Amino acid sequence: MTTPRREAERVGDLTTPCLLLTESVMRRNIGRLKSRLKSLGVPLRPHLKTPKCVEIARLLMDTPQGPATVSTLREAEVFADAGVRDMMYAVGIVPSKLDRVMALRRCGVDLSIVLDSVEAAQAVAERSRAEGAAIPALIEIDSDGHRAGVRPRDTARLIEIGRTLHAAGALRGVMTHAGSSYALNTKAALEAAAEQERAAAVSCAETLRNFGLPVAIVSVGSTPTAHYARDLTGITEVRAGNFVFFDLVMNGVGVCTTDDIAASVLASVIGHQPSNGWILVDAGWMSLSRDRGTARQTVDQGYGIVTDTNGKPYRDLIVVEVNQEQGIIAVRPGSNATLPDLPIGTRVRILPNHACATAAQHDHYNVIADQDSDVVTATWRRFAGW
Amino acid sequence: MTTPRREAERVGDLTTPCLLLTESVMRRNIGRLKSRLKSLGVPLRPHLKTPKCVEIARLLMDTPQGPATVSTLREAEVFADAGVRDMMYAVGIVPSKLDRVMALRRCGVDLSIVLDSVEAAQAVAERSRAEGAAIPALIEIDSDGHRAGVRPRDTARLIEIGRTLHAAGALRGVMTHAGSSYALNTKAALEAAAEQERAAAVSCAETLRNFGLPVAIVSVGSTPTAHYARDLTGITEVRAGNFVFFDLVMNGVGVCTTDDIAASVLASVIGHQPSNGWILVDAGWMSLSRDRGTARQTVDQGYGIVTDTNGKPYRDLIVVEVNQEQGIIAVRPGSNATLPDLPIGTRVRILPNHACATAAQHDHYNVIADQDSDVVTATWRRFAGW
Repeated sequence: MTTPRREAERVGDLTTPCLLLTESVMRRNIGRLKSRLKSLGVPLRPHLKTPKCVEIARLLMDTPQGPATVSTLREAEVFADAGVRDMMYAVGIVPSKLDRVMALRRCGVDLSIVLDSVEAAQAVAERSRAEGAAIPALIEIDSDGHRAGVRPRDTARLIEIGRTLHAAGALRGVMTHAGSSYALNTKAALEAAAEQERAAAVSCAETLRNFGLPVAIVSVGSTPTAHYARDLTGITEVRAGNFVFFDLVMNGVGVCTTDDIAASVLASVIGHQPSNGWILVDAGWMSLSRDRGTARQTVDQGYGIVTDTNGKPYRDLIVVEVNQEQGIIAVRPGSNATLPDLPIGTRVRILPNHACATAAQHDHYNVIADQDSDVVTATWRRFAGW
Repeated sequence: MTTPRREAERVGDLTTPCLLLTESVMRRNIGRLKSRLKSLGVPLRPHLKTPKCVEIARLLMDTPQGPATVSTLREAEVFADAGVRDMMYAVGIVPSKLDRVMALRRCGVDLSIVLDSVEAAQAVAERSRAEGAAIPALIEIDSDGHRAGVRPRDTARLIEIGRTLHAAGALRGVMTHAGSSYALNTKAALEAAAEQERAAAVSCAETLRNFGLPVAIVSVGSTPTAHYARDLTGITEVRAGNFVFFDLVMNGVGVCTTDDIAASVLASVIGHQPSNGWILVDAGWMSLSRDRGTARQTVDQGYGIVTDTNGKPYRDLIVVEVNQEQGIIAVRPGSNATLPDLPIGTRVRILPNHACATAAQHDHYNVIADQDSDVVTATWRRFAGW
């Protein structure tokens, strides 16, 4: 059976709004982090929640079987169908989700789970015993007060969880995520955050080992800390996801330049309000997302930086407001730049605040080779849901 | 061919996070606006961008053929496939989209378009002539400086657009949307906004008529103004969409109570950080959206109000922060309420800031009859894309 070949589609013919992905930039981002981690001697367990796409997953993973990180069981199931065999489901487990975890494990998928309470550890241990097969779990460590996890100094809780899991053969290791690194923007602070993340994970692993508990995996990661860690002694793997596309938040943190942003939204000019200095486009929050991550940064990029169709930013031009299917483009407040002349139908690109959130608004990637390419070389499906 | 019947699914068995829709509340919301507009003598052209669902569209429309409003051509195409024959595509047209508009019109769908520039009017007139069939267009009026549209006092532009369209038989009328009504919260201000919206549309229609141009449709609408208009003299139809579900933003505006909110996200407790006063759930921005519409209102509801599984709000309990797949629940800052005891696995519901944005994160509705029902009576698909 042959798949019918479609004529090469031109970027200029795509229906707007839509999601563009520049493959060379994405490959450069992947290569950059992998070579960095190689020099630090630690493998990458890429987080597939950012792309949610089989083709991109294969570019991210060291082998078609993994390792990988996922944020939903639906991701675990879709990637398992695509042959991935080593995954960590990195969101605190609810006992009612163990049926789906077990279904994947029975099919030969080494899916590990994450938890931070004695309560959840007991449920996992009980289920492991009932199944006669351990469900490997990592204890989440709270390295920076950001979200979930056992505090490193809460030794009693750590040990009780570790013992509960180990009694059922279900203790695989520890993991943490330096989520607060997203709020930093200097080299020194990012290096310190990476070291804090490393030290928290390693010290908890040591504590468990001192109590005779086996810790095979010591897992850390966030896009900022993965790019700033100077030493990863004691760490067995790094997780990161956003870096595959990067975005304006990561640009504000200082992890990338705007040239490193691989994903953008293609939009068409639909109108003008000259007295307000506005250009209207057909990209609103439905295609850009409502994410305003840069609002908390030194430079607020609104709902995104506007570039021409070759990816070159217009001077100080951003999306200042959005409705469901409309965006308002204007010169950044305080700038003396002039509004470019963009007649109705002109196409622009919008660089996202948060690539994970913007990509999530779309069901496929329109892949182009380079920022200035006009040919869509592939259409890659993205999936969603839980 | 028979469709296999599925056992009745229990809300307690649904995978979290997921979207719940309470049918009785939705029907009450629809009935309330329809009876209000009936008393004002104006039909509703419901905006289907909120539900993006055929089953809900049929409850909203006066007939299975329409009328209806859409925000994307994909909506127009899906609803056309479902038999809808009278739609307005209410986002400024780009000439490159006229092929898809014409394809629908050739199939017998009376799809009208919207524009606010001479440039776009010329493109539509040219295309109408080339096709030998007029593409009916409405001139968008800017009644409150909110977004797109011709300013009512810009008579020259209004008449030039009107004449350009009329010369090709393509002038159908005028439309406006009082988007700035979302920022109001008193009866007097909302009534004034509704009157301003009405007056702008009617005065522009009169201006066009005074120049001998035919105006069949004078269309206004937003959920707040539709619920506060006292008089709609001169108006031929009202558009509104959000009211079908309502949400916390509309509650803050004063258009609904929290009991009127028909859509919510079902989530499971996945952990606790007692020292921070946090409960963690498996609903993050992926299921709730990043919308923070209430941040600009008198009462900031965070990422949503937390209720029990019967829809009863816990006192002052809101989602204070979200990550991709995790939400942090805490007592509202400044409140003396105590954090309820919600063990791991407990299910809660989260009322959305902005129902259009939250629903857009899901591909189906889990329908329940009443707020305290435990049986899922139907699963209705939602679509997305452009």
